Amino acid sequence: MNAVDVLVVGAGISGLTAAWRLQQAGRSVRVLEASGRVGGRTLNHAFASGEVVEVGGQWVGPTQERILALIDELGLQTFPLWNQGDNLTLFGGALKSYRGTIPRFAPHVLLDVLQAQLRFERLARQIPLDDPARHPKAAQWDRMTFAEWINRTLKTAHGRKVFELLSGAVFAASPHDLSFLHVLFYVNSGTDFDTILGVEGGAQQDRITGGSQRICLALVERLGDAVLLKQSVRAVRQDDQGVELVTDQGVHRAARVIFAVPPTMLLRISQEPQLPGWRDQLLQRQPQGAVIKCMALYETPFWRERGLSGQATSELGPVRLTFDNSLPDSSHGVLMGFIEGDEARHWSARSEPERRAVVLECFARYFGEQALAPLEYVDKCWADEPFARGCYAALFPPGLWTSGAVRLREPFGRLHFAGTETATRWMGYFDGAVQAAERAVSEVLAAE
Amino acid sequence: MNAVDVLVVGAGISGLTAAWRLQQAGRSVRVLEASGRVGGRTLNHAFASGEVVEVGGQWVGPTQERILALIDELGLQTFPLWNQGDNLTLFGGALKSYRGTIPRFAPHVLLDVLQAQLRFERLARQIPLDDPARHPKAAQWDRMTFAEWINRTLKTAHGRKVFELLSGAVFAASPHDLSFLHVLFYVNSGTDFDTILGVEGGAQQDRITGGSQRICLALVERLGDAVLLKQSVRAVRQDDQGVELVTDQGVHRAARVIFAVPPTMLLRISQEPQLPGWRDQLLQRQPQGAVIKCMALYETPFWRERGLSGQATSELGPVRLTFDNSLPDSSHGVLMGFIEGDEARHWSARSEPERRAVVLECFARYFGEQALAPLEYVDKCWADEPFARGCYAALFPPGLWTSGAVRLREPFGRLHFAGTETATRWMGYFDGAVQAAERAVSEVLAAE
Repeated sequence: MNAVDVLVVGAGISGLTAAWRLQQAGRSVRVLEASGRVGGRTLNHAFASGEVVEVGGQWVGPTQERILALIDELGLQTFPLWNQGDNLTLFGGALKSYRGTIPRFAPHVLLDVLQAQLRFERLARQIPLDDPARHPKAAQWDRMTFAEWINRTLKTAHGRKVFELLSGAVFAASPHDLSFLHVLFYVNSGTDFDTILGVEGGAQQDRITGGSQRICLALVERLGDAVLLKQSVRAVRQDDQGVELVTDQGVHRAARVIFAVPPTMLLRISQEPQLPGWRDQLLQRQPQGAVIKCMALYETPFWRERGLSGQATSELGPVRLTFDNSLPDSSHGVLMGFIEGDEARHWSARSEPERRAVVLECFARYFGEQALAPLEYVDKCWADEPFARGCYAALFPPGLWTSGAVRLREPFGRLHFAGTETATRWMGYFDGAVQAAERAVSEVLAAE
Repeated sequence: MNAVDVLVVGAGISGLTAAWRLQQAGRSVRVLEASGRVGGRTLNHAFASGEVVEVGGQWVGPTQERILALIDELGLQTFPLWNQGDNLTLFGGALKSYRGTIPRFAPHVLLDVLQAQLRFERLARQIPLDDPARHPKAAQWDRMTFAEWINRTLKTAHGRKVFELLSGAVFAASPHDLSFLHVLFYVNSGTDFDTILGVEGGAQQDRITGGSQRICLALVERLGDAVLLKQSVRAVRQDDQGVELVTDQGVHRAARVIFAVPPTMLLRISQEPQLPGWRDQLLQRQPQGAVIKCMALYETPFWRERGLSGQATSELGPVRLTFDNSLPDSSHGVLMGFIEGDEARHWSARSEPERRAVVLECFARYFGEQALAPLEYVDKCWADEPFARGCYAALFPPGLWTSGAVRLREPFGRLHFAGTETATRWMGYFDGAVQAAERAVSEVLAAE
């Protein structure tokens, strides 16, 4: 293979954006993607009836300026998630409906949750986005799990469950998987709680017409034959002269490489010279979250007739969070639900019919018996995806930030690191993927 | 290469023991070792003056019946660690000496530490060794870090520091890296606190004549040309017919495979069919501990003249734990110290002269100025070791046991899993490596 200026590993949003920006800057690039498709953690699914939905990441929202600009630049459109009607919440055995963002909890529970939220936001705002470890109390907060903070702060069992649900929704992980400092950082990096959790005005506001994988498909159109599929990088060799990437199909050469893959995948690529011990150890401490995204297609969005929005939150699993994922130009209805964390690992080991049955039972619990008879069902266990091995993103357990995780962003010789896990703004989201790509591209251009 | 009955991956104590037992049972075996030596996490070092010490694991002690029987069977001898004289402890700015196992803490600190130890042991004894998740309170204890338990239980700052030191000494990790349930299990698996922490009567009692790597060297003598070095396994393919292991040197075939490598290394081997999502996710959550083992050789064991044992514990890093590692048949003295956890990652990024300087300063702090002028110095950063990437063993963070970590011991098709991380008795120690090997061998023989 001809040498190029820059090789990019991973054809998700981060890798493809980096490659395109480099091409625009006049550099020759090649993208090596291990799987047989582009998109990374975005993946479209077409129902037999033609509707295209996403079994991976799907949303964009206000303050995500980089991804919104990219979508615009690529000539793509967005449309709002269905957000009309009453939401449901199932806690303490009772299914209740409410309008807006604040469930009708008992007053003492509501007070508990709002006080905790205020305390949290007051701390989150203080966290330096370029390096959370610089906060004076970083050591204290990084030694603590999010579970520990919840137990200390929330006074009601119900309130604690709300925060546990939130941990699943935002991280696809349990509160005990996460450093409290990281949760503070993450929410600050995504603006604030209301923005991270919200539909209208928040991170779940808008969807991409044609499905979010179209971002990557549109980038590939521009990059053309610079993107190679089924090129799983087995080994990296770098020296004074350049870098070689070894795949089963051959050897690729460049002056520099940008890795845009989840940390756990980076760890699996053999390196010469090897990664320094500290870097390997930190990557070992960044496991992926676990999520199964489940969708059922119905003749109609029947829940809307009862004035329901399709949004439910619940203390009963395995589906604790649902949305109406119907498409505006279709008369069919789509219910979508998430199985997160430990439950995702548990259910990923069960058969598809078993999962389908339990997911539809959850939908029926919230929206009635009609939910048991969909036209079609689809789900996606991201732990099974060969080159992601989890979603949404890598988790930061206690001690990671304060033992120098910020340095994971630093180049290693001729290797540069993109991917949403290296972002300072909207880490874990599409927007972070773009920011990380731009930073890695600047490094590469500056290094010439 | 000819097919064999069983391929074993990893030539540490677990892998080589498994291979030998299979050979004794009349099976044809081949051991594939990625590095250029056998021993795994045991590694001898010869000083220029001829003394052989270990820069990896080195100790055996009472109740470690399996490794003691193996040592005997291999015709090796043991000798006791030097354990005469006064121990030192540096807390609250004061260096104090004491005899026996209990430092001369202030009475309220001593009370605090002993009460916590009693509470801990009462819980640890209840943990089922075959699966800690079966304990009725497993969920509660597995959601909690060891740091959280320490903060809740210990009433004095000094007492908390003692338990933090203990976490470093036993796990090469910080208390916030560990599930409290796992710490309970681990101590029960190693009998009790006194046994785990003790020299005489404990896990640091005895050393192996000629260095602990001789266990593996003696096993290799018996296995002969069945052990191949520099055979890094890149890929595994299994089907109804058998298993193929692909290394850079060729393809090896067998009916079954035993993996005896750290979890993070297992994760880096490409698999066909791939590991189930739940198994990959759990392996992602088992990072290696981090330790730098440091030794200085002196003209004489000068500290003994002052009646000191060479054993020190300290709240000041980076060396917080030392031993007299001199050899009985030599007039030279050897001081040995550990740098653990975050500090090990930090110091692994520094140069060898910088590490040497700071380690000798620590030795001098405890044993006087003479410690600054050794004949020789050696250290080993296990995070840098290409096929271990950390020591002593894998850590279990919160949530791992209760999301089914016990199943990591289960075979996956034709693949069986040994290594000390899969042991139920003395997990993390040589003894656990042998127990795990024996269990994997039984599985293989039963599967025929």
